[in-house]
Amino acid sequence: MAHQLADRRDVEFVLHEQLNLSDLSNHETYGEFNKKTIDLVISEARNLALKEVLPTNAPGDQSGCTLENGHVQIPDEFKRVWELYRDGEWIATSEDPGWGGQGMPHALSMACTEYLSGANMAMYMYVALTHGAANLVEAFGSQGQKEKYLRKMYSGEWTGTMLLTEPGAGSDVGALTTTATPNADGTYSIKGNKIFISGGEHDMVENIVHPVLARIEGAPEGTKGISLFTVPKYRVADDGSVGEFNDVVCTGIEHKMGIHGNCTCSLALGEKGECVGELLGEPNKGMRAMFQMMNEARLFVGIQGLSVAGASYANALTYAKERVQGPNLMTMMDKNPPAVPIIQHPDIRRQLIAMKANVEAMRSLLFYIGYCSDLKKVSDSEDEKERLQGIIDVLIPIGKGYVTDRSYDVCSHGMQVYGGYGFIEEYPQAQLLRDCRITMIYEGTNGIQAMDLLGRKLGMKKGKAVMDLMAEMQKTIAGAREVAALAPLADELEKAVGKLGEVAMYMGKTAMSTEVMNAFANAHPFMTVTGDVVFAWMHLWRALTATAGLEKTKKRDKDFYGGVLASAAHYIQTELPVAQGRMRAILKGSDAAMTIPETAFFG
Amino acid sequence: MAHQLADRRDVEFVLHEQLNLSDLSNHETYGEFNKKTIDLVISEARNLALKEVLPTNAPGDQSGCTLENGHVQIPDEFKRVWELYRDGEWIATSEDPGWGGQGMPHALSMACTEYLSGANMAMYMYVALTHGAANLVEAFGSQGQKEKYLRKMYSGEWTGTMLLTEPGAGSDVGALTTTATPNADGTYSIKGNKIFISGGEHDMVENIVHPVLARIEGAPEGTKGISLFTVPKYRVADDGSVGEFNDVVCTGIEHKMGIHGNCTCSLALGEKGECVGELLGEPNKGMRAMFQMMNEARLFVGIQGLSVAGASYANALTYAKERVQGPNLMTMMDKNPPAVPIIQHPDIRRQLIAMKANVEAMRSLLFYIGYCSDLKKVSDSEDEKERLQGIIDVLIPIGKGYVTDRSYDVCSHGMQVYGGYGFIEEYPQAQLLRDCRITMIYEGTNGIQAMDLLGRKLGMKKGKAVMDLMAEMQKTIAGAREVAALAPLADELEKAVGKLGEVAMYMGKTAMSTEVMNAFANAHPFMTVTGDVVFAWMHLWRALTATAGLEKTKKRDKDFYGGVLASAAHYIQTELPVAQGRMRAILKGSDAAMTIPETAFFG
Repeated sequence: MAHQLADRRDVEFVLHEQLNLSDLSNHETYGEFNKKTIDLVISEARNLALKEVLPTNAPGDQSGCTLENGHVQIPDEFKRVWELYRDGEWIATSEDPGWGGQGMPHALSMACTEYLSGANMAMYMYVALTHGAANLVEAFGSQGQKEKYLRKMYSGEWTGTMLLTEPGAGSDVGALTTTATPNADGTYSIKGNKIFISGGEHDMVENIVHPVLARIEGAPEGTKGISLFTVPKYRVADDGSVGEFNDVVCTGIEHKMGIHGNCTCSLALGEKGECVGELLGEPNKGMRAMFQMMNEARLFVGIQGLSVAGASYANALTYAKERVQGPNLMTMMDKNPPAVPIIQHPDIRRQLIAMKANVEAMRSLLFYIGYCSDLKKVSDSEDEKERLQGIIDVLIPIGKGYVTDRSYDVCSHGMQVYGGYGFIEEYPQAQLLRDCRITMIYEGTNGIQAMDLLGRKLGMKKGKAVMDLMAEMQKTIAGAREVAALAPLADELEKAVGKLGEVAMYMGKTAMSTEVMNAFANAHPFMTVTGDVVFAWMHLWRALTATAGLEKTKKRDKDFYGGVLASAAHYIQTELPVAQGRMRAILKGSDAAMTIPETAFFG
Repeated sequence: MAHQLADRRDVEFVLHEQLNLSDLSNHETYGEFNKKTIDLVISEARNLALKEVLPTNAPGDQSGCTLENGHVQIPDEFKRVWELYRDGEWIATSEDPGWGGQGMPHALSMACTEYLSGANMAMYMYVALTHGAANLVEAFGSQGQKEKYLRKMYSGEWTGTMLLTEPGAGSDVGALTTTATPNADGTYSIKGNKIFISGGEHDMVENIVHPVLARIEGAPEGTKGISLFTVPKYRVADDGSVGEFNDVVCTGIEHKMGIHGNCTCSLALGEKGECVGELLGEPNKGMRAMFQMMNEARLFVGIQGLSVAGASYANALTYAKERVQGPNLMTMMDKNPPAVPIIQHPDIRRQLIAMKANVEAMRSLLFYIGYCSDLKKVSDSEDEKERLQGIIDVLIPIGKGYVTDRSYDVCSHGMQVYGGYGFIEEYPQAQLLRDCRITMIYEGTNGIQAMDLLGRKLGMKKGKAVMDLMAEMQKTIAGAREVAALAPLADELEKAVGKLGEVAMYMGKTAMSTEVMNAFANAHPFMTVTGDVVFAWMHLWRALTATAGLEKTKKRDKDFYGGVLASAAHYIQTELPVAQGRMRAILKGSDAAMTIPETAFFG
């Protein structure tokens, strides 16, 4: 069959051979997730994605969402998909079974998400936002709030959102102006305007639960005075029954470059003074709650990037094998040389292997981060938990910021391989590129991710988190050096890791000095080189894994493992020298970006 | 006023200070284009662009084109703009005044195009295609054909197109199947299907002239049997009167990611056997004619890239100065620090200076290429003409392929600076990004440009063309070394030029060896590093020019020149080390892209 989404063999390779995910089933928490179950789950996600979800992707993009009299119409096809997600229990794959979740390891849940989001990114956002909102209730809600919301949300009876951004408060969340006024019954009257609310209003389900960031009257300015509330579209009684409209009015939807099928709403809360919310967690601790959930949200955006990049690569690969155009370069001098599939042309092949290598590294990295949180969950050691969390924390900005930068590159290659047809909306590549572009912006722009890496993660625990990550890299390097064919790649990576250590020291020092502005002007290049090295590490790890696989494989898998080794060689040989150059540029410490006066910028 | 298009000061800097364009007025050909006239022309183009054309850009994108019963409706607003282009004589700015052109130097014409295309890229394509088609008639037509078509096309009474691509013959032009059967009266009956025809059908003007590539019955296969014909939409009598419909039927229009306002048509020629064409030039020499015109077409695409990148930068700069969000990093520790315009944030500034430096280098390079052809036109020396043509030929794939790769990067930064608003279609950045993307694809994908650089241009005249270009770079380096402040930048560029020479030798040798496939798999990286070095050269040249300007400037220009120097420093310090890394990667000669078996590509 033609490739349209992630190749299953590589998904299995990462889960079973690189990560040995089924070893987790030795622990009670994940006891049922042995290899057989894992494979079954992936089969189901993949089938659902290919057969039911993918066919709704282009139609949803074309019809988009419409707003009439405050009611948002989302694409019709999506409603059926939502029912399939509910029936198959795909809304809360990794959530607590005690509240209706499936309790999967995160790494497995991510593999499912890659298929489902890759098949229709706009549609899958309704799922992700719903369990994201419910996660907040689970983490910070009272027993009563949990009883009221969790099962309905994890089962998909209701959906969820996140009301954070306001017109004057985007990246600067602390500037928000939505207010919460205490009522006599312990609830709060909410008043304010929120924008960019994905899935903010629709009639796909009976109710929508909005976690809302707002400031209780008299609370401090800035982020210190922000609290979190649950504000349902229709009020919910303590027995769970749905009551009257809660004065959450959709005042507009955005016309976006991509993710047309996901409505992006402006919501007016309490215009009539009838919007009631319940405090979620402690007063003025809203930002802490947000931060706790942010890792997962950002990782999800990384998976979105992977999912569309993977789909774009799969399409490009199929197209390149089928599209016949021009002779093979080696036969150019022949008389009337036959036209060949374009996969034989070197420039197409360069793009395909670049796409392949990036997609594979993204997949390995993201599933690895998920796996770290699974390991953390089953670990008995506090030290180990802390070590794992440190690695996760450092890798989050890479998994979101660097991964989505690369996803967008991959989607652009995916368009280019199609030539003129890539630009035509009847073919799938344009939509994937348009959809992908938002991943670089939301959940903190990639510039914010870079600042997070430099400003928070680099110095975390006095640098121990970064050191722990580098120690993991060194383990892979040591292992690869034992294999003759991989030793040169291991050397290249070791040199790059060494250089990255030097750059990290320099960046950390500069960020603490009067040169802090220059340091932050280099935050994004620093994230880029860190990501390059992390991807190279993933490739070396994959190559080591493939070498072991090759030793015991049947004929059928030889090609696959050969492809893993080729990706690793290509990535390490062609990307690491560029990263080395970029690291040298960072160390040169150019200050032109900051010293240029504002008045000297011309158009 | 807020920036919306290219800053005039920089356009003047390139034309008057870097290139000294008005010196051309010492030659009869360009006698009237003294500084005053040049400035007047730019003023008019800029005013027209800002006041009349720019307001049609978003509406044209939204309404797009529609097809009904073979008739294409283009955006209504465009018809008025077309009349303004006609009235102002903007259709044939650099063409022969003897046939109704304005006879401007190309460099000046490009400056106008930057404004007009930047204001509405889709609309300006109707202009560019028209004089492009007419250029073919002027270059290859008989006196009778010129009389029949040229004045009507250069005046915009009729428009023109180019019918090249067919469903099975895109990059591989030689595979085309459209036939031309000789008629008794010397005309040909044309039959075939063409796709991706920009401006192929509309009712903006009385007639459309289609230059068509087709194969005369019995002609050789491949590119050697291709001839060029003029096929008007309505037949034209020898006296220029427009007659009956010529059986050129629009069978479909494409729904594209961008340039919505320019109709992209599928045309069926001679379905009823009633399509008549006239041979243009000699039989079987159609490809030669195409190649002769290709340089100009490719340069135009480069200008398109510059024009939208420049607009995206101008918008981003204005937005960054106006948008207030978050405190300055230096005041973060203060109590309640005030929010500041985002241009104060280091990550925004990094993006702005990267955009600025790329746009400036593009502008300098493209105008320089235009200027070389102007110099060639007025030169008396055959050697000098040949030297200039060699430099032009080498720079064309950079001016198209590398420039549009960078244009797309700039437009992506331009979206990122807007944050969430960048993704919303009510703001200008999304359309600029979508429009820009096609420039990497048409007139030969950027992969084809890279193959052109490696396969044709590198070895041209036994490498003399490349050597001549490098000699120009050395002149700038020698000049810059005399200025203490620029000497370190000159050193960096000299090292990079030296390394590029090494890479070029390696690539040339590899392309002639059995490793030819590997060489071509590296064609695009080779184009990238060549472009990096060329841009750095432009920046050094600009810096040298600005240094001279600073010595005699008034206060007002100090900022501008300071900005030029900052761009140069930023580009050379941060991009050249990366280019050095990429050159090292090329020299490593990784062959993974070619040695990986087709069956080892997985999704």
